[in-house]
Amino acid sequence: MLNVRPFAIEPDAACRGAALRQRARDGVLGATCTPDALDLVQANLVVLPQADAADFLLYCQRNPRPCPLLAVGEPGAFALPALGEGIDLRTDLPRYRVWRDGELVDQPADVCALWRDDFVAFAIGCSFSFEWALLAEGIALRHVQQGRNVAMFRTHVPTEAAGRFAGPLVVSMRPLKAADAIRAVQITSRFPTVHGAPVHLGDPALIGIADLARPDYGDAVAVMPDEIPVFWACGVTPQAALAAARPTLCITHAPGSMLITDLRNHQLATL
Amino acid sequence: MLNVRPFAIEPDAACRGAALRQRARDGVLGATCTPDALDLVQANLVVLPQADAADFLLYCQRNPRPCPLLAVGEPGAFALPALGEGIDLRTDLPRYRVWRDGELVDQPADVCALWRDDFVAFAIGCSFSFEWALLAEGIALRHVQQGRNVAMFRTHVPTEAAGRFAGPLVVSMRPLKAADAIRAVQITSRFPTVHGAPVHLGDPALIGIADLARPDYGDAVAVMPDEIPVFWACGVTPQAALAAARPTLCITHAPGSMLITDLRNHQLATL
Repeated sequence: MLNVRPFAIEPDAACRGAALRQRARDGVLGATCTPDALDLVQANLVVLPQADAADFLLYCQRNPRPCPLLAVGEPGAFALPALGEGIDLRTDLPRYRVWRDGELVDQPADVCALWRDDFVAFAIGCSFSFEWALLAEGIALRHVQQGRNVAMFRTHVPTEAAGRFAGPLVVSMRPLKAADAIRAVQITSRFPTVHGAPVHLGDPALIGIADLARPDYGDAVAVMPDEIPVFWACGVTPQAALAAARPTLCITHAPGSMLITDLRNHQLATL
Repeated sequence: MLNVRPFAIEPDAACRGAALRQRARDGVLGATCTPDALDLVQANLVVLPQADAADFLLYCQRNPRPCPLLAVGEPGAFALPALGEGIDLRTDLPRYRVWRDGELVDQPADVCALWRDDFVAFAIGCSFSFEWALLAEGIALRHVQQGRNVAMFRTHVPTEAAGRFAGPLVVSMRPLKAADAIRAVQITSRFPTVHGAPVHLGDPALIGIADLARPDYGDAVAVMPDEIPVFWACGVTPQAALAAARPTLCITHAPGSMLITDLRNHQLATL
């Protein structure tokens, strides 16, 4: 039957997604960049009390490139049926971060004891999905080859505020040869729900980045003379907005410890 | 300077948009399908008290194909700077509809006297934009040629509910030859913020449509033997959800009387 969603969950992917989440529940999944999860959509998690959720939803709506929403849960619900059957957001991520008044206070393996009836969960698209698309098309990514984190930078570009949520656009940078940069624009434009097309390429100073060798987050990655830096809106942007807004309580995924869904990356392509 | 938006407003378009809105303000713009507005993005308007706005925002987030959000205003604000400078949502549409408890009670030319500090405005992408893209690529649309409204149908496909907002997916139908249907998929896929790709093509019974000759809204349009019906998610969907939710007060555009923005349709293309 036709669904209002643009895609149906594939049985094989649902089976693999459920198995991976079970491993996280059992405490035996260390990180979500495991090879058997590479083609599955992974999501950044943000959980907020309902009092803050409306403004955060508006913040995401106004800043779809850094904050592309894959799904928003019902108040109190720890399921996200849009992204997979049987998801339990309290247990299905390998590790969580708990923030009180903007301060990191704990990094537990589950958040069962903290869950509240007024919690609203946000699943935000992650660059893993578009990197999968780039790698699948034969575009090499240096930080992947070197086993490093991608380099991320705070820019001087403000996001659009919503209530207390505001802050600079944070971007990730990948150095590419010109032909690959052009192809990367084409490929990632097809994936608007996982950051989409780059926001900038070339001179980093134009967006307020002083030194590519000193990222604000992640690891520095060299840019060769025949390459240009290509910048994508980054999921650290909403994390920075959350840190600035200092909600009384907030739960997020820990870095490298995302929600593995039952969707396959290729299903997110618009064309 | 780089903006978090994927596009900047062009001075010429801003000038034309402002002039057209001034004509609406002055009561001399009858309908927004005027030739000098064809390349400008037009938006369906929904204004709700803040108490209902959070759920409606979530409804749109969950149903992006029938309810693609172009912008959401601040509480009380009648400006929408994301869509154009100097927009005054109280006066800039040729005609409004006012709904109380789900019943249409008035169709005024402005809503200045009704505006409240807790009103939240939603601007929703409209099929005019993707029809512009289809026509620009040489794909003829019969209802346009015949000067009729597009044929629209309630389907048996449920949208995803959010609070009291729920209801069936409503679709618009355009008959196309197979080659044009394929090209139309390609073209409209580039425009996810104005309904995007079709949701169905071929047998109308598969989505619960009994008779193409009897649309639920708009005018019947013939489907020739060498054509297939192509169905897009339609902006009447949120209107049906609003009618079902029966908010105490709601203001919308009147049919054919949308908000003319300063954006150009081609700027909405993702690729």
